[in-house]
Amino acid sequence: MTYVRNAWYVAAWADECGAQRPMGVRVLNEPIVIWRNAGGELAAFEDRCIHRLAPLSLGRCEGEKLRCMYHGLLYDRTGCVIEVPGQDKIPSSLHVRSYPVIERHKWIWIWMGGVSQANETLIPSVIPPIGLEHPDYIYGHGYLDFAAEARLINDNLLDLSHVSFLHAESFRLGETWTRERPQVTQLERSVRSERWFKNQGFNGSLDFKIPVDTYFVQELFIPGVLLMTARSYSGGTADALNGQQPSDFRRPPESSSTQYSFSIQAVTPLTCKTARYFYIVGDRRRGDETSYDMTTYEKGFAEDKMMIEAQQRNIDTAPSRRFMPTSADRGVVLFNRLIERMAGEEGRSGESITSDGPPHGSDKKESDCIDEGDCR
Amino acid sequence: MTYVRNAWYVAAWADECGAQRPMGVRVLNEPIVIWRNAGGELAAFEDRCIHRLAPLSLGRCEGEKLRCMYHGLLYDRTGCVIEVPGQDKIPSSLHVRSYPVIERHKWIWIWMGGVSQANETLIPSVIPPIGLEHPDYIYGHGYLDFAAEARLINDNLLDLSHVSFLHAESFRLGETWTRERPQVTQLERSVRSERWFKNQGFNGSLDFKIPVDTYFVQELFIPGVLLMTARSYSGGTADALNGQQPSDFRRPPESSSTQYSFSIQAVTPLTCKTARYFYIVGDRRRGDETSYDMTTYEKGFAEDKMMIEAQQRNIDTAPSRRFMPTSADRGVVLFNRLIERMAGEEGRSGESITSDGPPHGSDKKESDCIDEGDCR
Amino acid sequence: MTYVRNAWYVAAWADECGAQRPMGVRVLNEPIVIWRNAGGELAAFEDRCIHRLAPLSLGRCEGEKLRCMYHGLLYDRTGCVIEVPGQDKIPSSLHVRSYPVIERHKWIWIWMGGVSQANETLIPSVIPPIGLEHPDYIYGHGYLDFAAEARLINDNLLDLSHVSFLHAESFRLGETWTRERPQVTQLERSVRSERWFKNQGFNGSLDFKIPVDTYFVQELFIPGVLLMTARSYSGGTADALNGQQPSDFRRPPESSSTQYSFSIQAVTPLTCKTARYFYIVGDRRRGDETSYDMTTYEKGFAEDKMMIEAQQRNIDTAPSRRFMPTSADRGVVLFNRLIERMAGEEGRSGESITSDGPPHGSDKKESDCIDEGDCR
Repeated sequence: MTYVRNAWYVAAWADECGAQRPMGVRVLNEPIVIWRNAGGELAAFEDRCIHRLAPLSLGRCEGEKLRCMYHGLLYDRTGCVIEVPGQDKIPSSLHVRSYPVIERHKWIWIWMGGVSQANETLIPSVIPPIGLEHPDYIYGHGYLDFAAEARLINDNLLDLSHVSFLHAESFRLGETWTRERPQVTQLERSVRSERWFKNQGFNGSLDFKIPVDTYFVQELFIPGVLLMTARSYSGGTADALNGQQPSDFRRPPESSSTQYSFSIQAVTPLTCKTARYFYIVGDRRRGDETSYDMTTYEKGFAEDKMMIEAQQRNIDTAPSRRFMPTSADRGVVLFNRLIERMAGEEGRSGESITSDGPPHGSDKKESDCIDEGDCR
Repeated sequence: MTYVRNAWYVAAWADECGAQRPMGVRVLNEPIVIWRNAGGELAAFEDRCIHRLAPLSLGRCEGEKLRCMYHGLLYDRTGCVIEVPGQDKIPSSLHVRSYPVIERHKWIWIWMGGVSQANETLIPSVIPPIGLEHPDYIYGHGYLDFAAEARLINDNLLDLSHVSFLHAESFRLGETWTRERPQVTQLERSVRSERWFKNQGFNGSLDFKIPVDTYFVQELFIPGVLLMTARSYSGGTADALNGQQPSDFRRPPESSSTQYSFSIQAVTPLTCKTARYFYIVGDRRRGDETSYDMTTYEKGFAEDKMMIEAQQRNIDTAPSRRFMPTSADRGVVLFNRLIERMAGEEGRSGESITSDGPPHGSDKKESDCIDEGDCR
Repeated sequence: MTYVRNAWYVAAWADECGAQRPMGVRVLNEPIVIWRNAGGELAAFEDRCIHRLAPLSLGRCEGEKLRCMYHGLLYDRTGCVIEVPGQDKIPSSLHVRSYPVIERHKWIWIWMGGVSQANETLIPSVIPPIGLEHPDYIYGHGYLDFAAEARLINDNLLDLSHVSFLHAESFRLGETWTRERPQVTQLERSVRSERWFKNQGFNGSLDFKIPVDTYFVQELFIPGVLLMTARSYSGGTADALNGQQPSDFRRPPESSSTQYSFSIQAVTPLTCKTARYFYIVGDRRRGDETSYDMTTYEKGFAEDKMMIEAQQRNIDTAPSRRFMPTSADRGVVLFNRLIERMAGEEGRSGESITSDGPPHGSDKKESDCIDEGDCR
């Protein structure tokens, strides 16, 4: 599988990683421990003690430090070994691999590539001021693990023509999704797809009273982060604008009669054949609801999971078979070509993409012995 | 594993595949969808949509057609793609692989080899007029999945000397089965084994009142379809006939005091290491039973399953070990040699026997793109 | 994985193998059947009938013989085939592989190497007269299966500095275990580690009333058999003896106020990635207890299992990563170097260490057919 390493991957919900409780996750098949120091600041290490490869996620937070609870090696926040119990001398610069880590949009993001290239601005922005908290909106969220490679989930999100078939019983969206093609644009690190639904239910919904025009935009960012926004307009707007994006589309509407919904989703490869699908959905609040009703989304996502896992099993039975793109696959083709190109450039610049991950973090490769040979 | 492709494999019970409900099965490690059109006629396709390899068994029957429910491609009964939603132009001759399929003896049979060689007469006939429905007889049936390769089940059926040991507590058949060897004959596409049980319980049963002579015939057809028949005669018949088959053996007896039993069984490789064992057993009705008591058969088949799965695990631990045939293995050796020869001939004539199955069904291999490149 | 074959492996508890009930075990990934003849004497064979590789552990003890219950081959106690039902002639010297087997210390020990080199004196002795039965002592025992290679468990036992961290909540032993290094000695087929705990709880326990000195010895024998003994002395003894082993250490104490505990443990590789950990622990009886309270041991062993299985998963994710020994790993390094050397010498002398095990036991390799070709 081909993945871009110089990218921010969503590793967990921020509130999953509590104070002083190290948490083990997996990204790109690398075991990673995420932990907070006494001040709540995040750190992320390879989840293998350099001594005997025991998981540090079974370790203990000690203020600003993290201790392996197998034989007691102690690490500081940068991943340096600062204590080997019972041993006075420790080779300098002995450390475990450390990953850049950021908390944003309720998620913990990890940079899987070269540390010097880590760049916070590559985390996609959500539209202010709605963000993920706003009194006029109500939110739902969750995650779902797939027994399938992440690419198949990205592809699913890149070609929403499937909603008319796979989700006919759940989302109940009409045939516009499959009969008409959106406008697809490739950008520097994303593929955007946008379209009008004219004179029908919001977003093409089959369940509506008064028809509207809806402008819908989705953008999938490297490595697999999706932003989706839809906003309703009065019938005829699309034609009046000659199919262009309305100028006020990215401003949250003031009138509560305007429908406005959005979703932020992230697909993270756990292993070669498993992935975690994180999602946040938001809608304009209709009354005084205290929680978002996720029934429809959960049914729809379960349909995706069933289909994609079955697709994966079919692929595994005959790995040489190739997909045959239709005209609806334009976004799929562009995004995968972008990944291939970026991953290829990383490969040429010496960034490894093996299942073992990058080389071991120790600077002391020549001896591979913590006590400089005295144990032998 | 070596299997013959130019053969009819039992894929399912006919009543498992209901009206307008596509059914996924697996034969020779190929995923296959079987479905009935509005008129109840069967079709069988490779269970992978050509677009993104999603299973068509998760699809929807639409009268005479079958639709993939991922992105909506529509197939006619021959496997041709006749609609790609939202796309006007479809390359001609785009189709999924279609398999010859027949409903007979309560089973759905699939031809796994070259379509031009499919020949209905290669499905073994059951003896008329008994067939599988006759008021004087009562029937039982079922199937059992084995975590073992089909060959081990075939071998088990080809050497019934095991009944004296493995089935000592279930079928309670005497030592004749293991102490005397049947007459074994190789035919064009089968191996037949026949014998007399003289002056003992029917079929050598340890539980009897009046001893009889029994003539017993079993024949295992390529790829793994077994017919077994046994008929009782008065004591002394075997010697009077000098051990020959009685001339009336294949005619169902008129007298209800004559014992007559038969079984039809089929062993289908699902994957390299799993198989489904289908069975129908019939006995002369003794009274007004409404259902066949399968207790003994089910106990006996469970003994086979336990032993054969343990044998498979032993084989997997040391794959280089070979069997060492005894004189009881004559049928085993002949049948496996027949399979090797037939599979070898298929290989020479260009029929592939890989786990990927035959080449992809599309005539449009050069582009591998349904919309002729417009998606790129 | 590297293992020594010329060694006694613990295969089972002696009372697990009852009269006339063959028992299947696995050692070094070889399936083995252990059985007792009518007189209770043990025999151990490869657990594969030479005919069709069915497990003999599904067979039947018949007095001095063992019968395969698939097709009925009968074996004598040496593993020779002495009956093929229905076949008069049997090739001479047809036999299944037989393993030297001994019952000792409540365990069944199997010799996995060359039969001519099997030597009972290589089973470690426990200290008489305590042995494993003594009215002044009380015993507990059990076993635990690990989803990890045996080596990781041996390593765990060779570096007990982990007790201060991993077992902080269960065994509650102090920091001496991790802060001070024991004296480590390599012997011919073992690595011994010994130390004093001065003026603290017995064995360094955090829970005590009157401090004592404790002398503690553990020795791990090839292939993975551990003896541990600890005995208390009055405070000051260690210094008075200048750190030497007390001369009465190996004599069980007469005074009931002297604390004396011991453990015998064995680590047996089942497959490459699974192992069984057998343990017996004994303590001086304090009152009239009728059973040993294993709560603390079971909690501690479960901590080992959790950590070691997690360590194994980490290793599997990146098999190229190496351990980096600390000064606490001296015993680990010596023992593994000993195994490498001994296994290497076995390799040079022609002893195979493949997953298939040694060559097939039949002398009749040229034909591989029990009835000398008549079956063909």
